[in-house]
Amino acid sequence: MKDVLAVTKDLINRRSVTPEDAGCQDMMKDWLAELGFNNETMVFEDTTNLWSRRGNDGPVFCFAGHTDVVPSGPESAWKTPPFSATEKDGVLYGRGAADMKGSLAAMLTATRQFVNDYPDHHGSIAFLITSDEEGPFINGTTRVIDTLEARNEKIKWCIVGEPSSTDTVGDVVKNGRRGSLTGDLIVKGIQGHVAYPHLAKNPVHDASPALAELANAHWDNGNDFFPPTSFQISNIHAGTGAGNVIPGELHVCFNFRFSTEVTDRELIKRVEEILARHNLDYEIKWTFNGQPFLTDKGDLVEAAQKAISSEMDFDTELSTAGGTSDGRFIAPTGAQVVELGPVNASIHKIDEHVRIQDLYHLERIYYRIMEHLLT
Amino acid sequence: MKDVLAVTKDLINRRSVTPEDAGCQDMMKDWLAELGFNNETMVFEDTTNLWSRRGNDGPVFCFAGHTDVVPSGPESAWKTPPFSATEKDGVLYGRGAADMKGSLAAMLTATRQFVNDYPDHHGSIAFLITSDEEGPFINGTTRVIDTLEARNEKIKWCIVGEPSSTDTVGDVVKNGRRGSLTGDLIVKGIQGHVAYPHLAKNPVHDASPALAELANAHWDNGNDFFPPTSFQISNIHAGTGAGNVIPGELHVCFNFRFSTEVTDRELIKRVEEILARHNLDYEIKWTFNGQPFLTDKGDLVEAAQKAISSEMDFDTELSTAGGTSDGRFIAPTGAQVVELGPVNASIHKIDEHVRIQDLYHLERIYYRIMEHLLT
Repeated sequence: MKDVLAVTKDLINRRSVTPEDAGCQDMMKDWLAELGFNNETMVFEDTTNLWSRRGNDGPVFCFAGHTDVVPSGPESAWKTPPFSATEKDGVLYGRGAADMKGSLAAMLTATRQFVNDYPDHHGSIAFLITSDEEGPFINGTTRVIDTLEARNEKIKWCIVGEPSSTDTVGDVVKNGRRGSLTGDLIVKGIQGHVAYPHLAKNPVHDASPALAELANAHWDNGNDFFPPTSFQISNIHAGTGAGNVIPGELHVCFNFRFSTEVTDRELIKRVEEILARHNLDYEIKWTFNGQPFLTDKGDLVEAAQKAISSEMDFDTELSTAGGTSDGRFIAPTGAQVVELGPVNASIHKIDEHVRIQDLYHLERIYYRIMEHLLT
Repeated sequence: MKDVLAVTKDLINRRSVTPEDAGCQDMMKDWLAELGFNNETMVFEDTTNLWSRRGNDGPVFCFAGHTDVVPSGPESAWKTPPFSATEKDGVLYGRGAADMKGSLAAMLTATRQFVNDYPDHHGSIAFLITSDEEGPFINGTTRVIDTLEARNEKIKWCIVGEPSSTDTVGDVVKNGRRGSLTGDLIVKGIQGHVAYPHLAKNPVHDASPALAELANAHWDNGNDFFPPTSFQISNIHAGTGAGNVIPGELHVCFNFRFSTEVTDRELIKRVEEILARHNLDYEIKWTFNGQPFLTDKGDLVEAAQKAISSEMDFDTELSTAGGTSDGRFIAPTGAQVVELGPVNASIHKIDEHVRIQDLYHLERIYYRIMEHLLT
């Protein structure tokens, strides 16, 4: 019987570079079918998703995760082959070791143990697995959630296996995420020769005071769970390359990470007020990447805290920092959502890895959470 | 005997895309040798230059110009083949028609007539011809001037054949040019993830208030001959393309066109003061493209004014507006320099052209100037 380490290796050895699944879900389906789960494969466009449920009653406890991984980068830069899991000095190396094939393996082995120990547990256990979390996240979790919502199938508690931890597994649990809003701004001027500035209109000059104001603006103070809302310009471009031409357009891309103290609509309104006050001739395209969400104290957070303190002998820290995750699609249904997984220091990097001991701890933490909630 | 129109066509039909000369100077040398000029070819790196002089006495009256042209752009976009001079409705089409093969032809035919009429003119007549005016201008006029200076050969009066005119030939004479100074600025920050702004330092945010201040700064009021000094950002770039990465560096390229009320040193000092006041971590590379120069009232300007009013029945306007020219290399030797040539509306564009009538006028204007100064 394969343990969490062996299952993690099996998953890493499948080259599931986003949006490929490379058979990971088939492996999970076989495993879950044996434990009495009902598998439902949901294919949307290029993305294969799995909704698997054991039991027909509520409440539903769900493990959520993704089988896809980011590209390895140059394989020659790795110390070990990225798609051939390699153990060394108590550490397992390979693309997806931490993000998040180790978590998927821990979910599977914890569930096997739990179902064996408590075959008649309360409620239902479910898996919501996608293969596009690392890609455009259009045909993954969000579409599975739409399908479940349409048939009024509700998740009460959800653990997303994202690598939430900082130094050792369980030291940080994410109980929410900031919202994300992107603006693509084009400020229009009139192109011309630098020797004839009266015939041109320089959009960089026109926009600079507005950009300075945006960069220095105070958006909110944050709150107990969220840091203050942050505005960052990620890209700025103008010019033909020639040194004697006044550019005709300035392109600026910026992003907000925002707290629950403000909404995307309020941010859009404030930005557009600033642009208008500076009399800019502009176009802007807004891309809304997700509302902030927060899972306040409640039975899921409590179960996670207890499970970690029993297993690890320390108290976990609740945090809402860091990037977005698929939790943002699940939380708006009313589900309690936390992210709990391995140390994230090596994710998306060369030589991604996870401590093997942490995999066993993670399996036990997941098991204990189910025990708290479903028995 | 070829007239100015025929000579212009001969020159246009030679594909002398910068820094190529394509035999233009050889044609000019043959022509000038017949008139008693002493030709001196000066090759510097990839650039062929001609210094040709008739007479050994001072003062030296010099025609300056260039045989190279800018690329045609897509030939299929032209109504007529760019390197095959074509007459149509009193207009001559072809690359270089206005900038400045028409001027070169008028210089040659005016000189032929003048030498025939006044074989024993005062002083000397010279031609300073390069083939890199449209390129990097490193191995052209500036190196010929260095050579002349080294042997203490002085030009007193110089007419540069640049297309100075706005609506009809001779309506504008340039008696100076603004200075040009370019800055390549790199503002340094710390790259990071937009979700973790406290670990990064956004150089676009840091630089925006400084750029706004530079864009709005008042540099001088100009004077009777020069418009106020102008600052223009030509290029600005930061960002990896990814929307979730705070850029590590901001690149800004800007250019000053400056009057004789300020020096390049003063401008550099003021820019660096502004950058320092905003506490920017930066590197800057300055490229000095030329001091402003001015040929105030004097016998050359007067001769040009008189020649134009006799030939054209209107008074010319003196101007220092517009881009740089090789005049900036000649003026610092103490020479009086004016630019006088065809209408510049079509230069560097598709379907470049010159009015044929203007070529004959230009020849006569050049002739009359020589008559004023050398007889």
